Amino acid sequence: MRLVRAGAVGSEVPGALVDDDTFVDLSDVVDDFDGTFFASGAIAALPATIASRIADGRGEALAGRRLGAPIARPHQILCIGLNYSDHAAETGQPVPDEPILFTKSPNTLIGPNDDVQVPRGSEKTDWEVELGIVVGQRASYLADETEAADAIAGYVLVNDVSEREWQLERNGQWSKGKSAPTFNPAGPYLVTPDEIHDVLDLDMWLDIDGVRRQNGSTSTMIFSPTFIVHYLSQFMALEPGDLINTGTPPGVGMGMSPQAFLHGGETMTLGITRLGTQTQRVIGN
Amino acid sequence: MRLVRAGAVGSEVPGALVDDDTFVDLSDVVDDFDGTFFASGAIAALPATIASRIADGRGEALAGRRLGAPIARPHQILCIGLNYSDHAAETGQPVPDEPILFTKSPNTLIGPNDDVQVPRGSEKTDWEVELGIVVGQRASYLADETEAADAIAGYVLVNDVSEREWQLERNGQWSKGKSAPTFNPAGPYLVTPDEIHDVLDLDMWLDIDGVRRQNGSTSTMIFSPTFIVHYLSQFMALEPGDLINTGTPPGVGMGMSPQAFLHGGETMTLGITRLGTQTQRVIGN
Repeated sequence: MRLVRAGAVGSEVPGALVDDDTFVDLSDVVDDFDGTFFASGAIAALPATIASRIADGRGEALAGRRLGAPIARPHQILCIGLNYSDHAAETGQPVPDEPILFTKSPNTLIGPNDDVQVPRGSEKTDWEVELGIVVGQRASYLADETEAADAIAGYVLVNDVSEREWQLERNGQWSKGKSAPTFNPAGPYLVTPDEIHDVLDLDMWLDIDGVRRQNGSTSTMIFSPTFIVHYLSQFMALEPGDLINTGTPPGVGMGMSPQAFLHGGETMTLGITRLGTQTQRVIGN
Repeated sequence: MRLVRAGAVGSEVPGALVDDDTFVDLSDVVDDFDGTFFASGAIAALPATIASRIADGRGEALAGRRLGAPIARPHQILCIGLNYSDHAAETGQPVPDEPILFTKSPNTLIGPNDDVQVPRGSEKTDWEVELGIVVGQRASYLADETEAADAIAGYVLVNDVSEREWQLERNGQWSKGKSAPTFNPAGPYLVTPDEIHDVLDLDMWLDIDGVRRQNGSTSTMIFSPTFIVHYLSQFMALEPGDLINTGTPPGVGMGMSPQAFLHGGETMTLGITRLGTQTQRVIGN
């Protein structure tokens, strides 16, 4: 099942994507894909609802409607750093022996094809294609990775946009360079785990103006999604609808020689197998 | 004006404190002290409403009702690290030349006198009395500290409870040791800036089982509240209702010789001039 939120900013309608051009409106049975929805367990009934509506001819053409992020603004956006062995090598840092956690402001969340704004004063805005986990239920002190798997509502493509000077050269904690407005495009859809049997073997890529910059696979991920969810639940309570960005493969601008960063007028396109693609125009500062 | 939220967990009623024992219910004019409320500007009309209700004899005895945090769960909890010159010295770290930012999970917010839980596996749970800022309006790229002052809805006493091993010895980013459930007692009240003319000259203290551990003053704060709000707005958009913990003075357990940390059965009491006091029982793991 692929869940989407279609419509103008702030008035997105929850629905499901049947094929790449066909949308089933679910707004009469779902207020929004938010914490309340995920906590309710109502997601389990949606496949039958969607099938019945398709049978009744209630599919609609997506027809160029804007897509928002496929989840409402979450309680928190958590991120795992240096979680790809080949990306850790690229940055010159050792492979971490346990997950590095940092956060992004929840109001960074935007639609998959919305504009990304280079923030004022920024000279080092960078890109990061990532696999995002959407949490499906409250998760505190999970016993093991089996419980963690049950707590995952689905997966989503994200671009963990990052300002490297602010992240790394402005007194140490990474959140400062991760939280500027528009820094977390997500979508086009939330894909439920039953459709992702190979979450540790998904190709992922990112282009700038059509030139391939990132080229990787979740197969080089150090800590798996179920490991991460189990791990984080020992330190904090995860909530339904929380988003966890799980790290990026090689090819970020900071790792290039010479380094390259984003400028107004450029276009980012990115994708992960089975999670769709995104295209963002970069707006200069 | 001192705003409070009184009642059981999850069903707190917004109101104002007239004196330490008298409460004016505002639930017919305010849904909650949340982002929507602060954004609306409705706070400006409350003093007249409160005065009229006192005149009408509508004050109620607080009479042992539980107090919740005086604000609803915020969009984000931001924290400034090492923001007291005497605390930086205590930790052996240099005085930062610009604010250190880290975050706490918003679901750490609890009432001022609720129990604090030592998390499972923790051996280094520590205390931090702090001045909290509540943001009153969306703040992005503020021009100067005058604009920042206008964006502050008020101040609140907080205890920035911290797990030092998780913060400092478990791969670097501080948020991991700041986000366990119950780690952010706040209150008893939100005090509006018109009642705090001396925000940089407030005494602050914290006792464990009646023994004074922290003893400081906002006069040794390195970056002032208006500096912090202006500064943060350059990196991210602050939202109405956001909470900013501004750092702690000397006397944390990590800084003692030998180090001392929290154990089940202990009691924390803390206060800041004009912001009231808190008492938390510590629950062991």
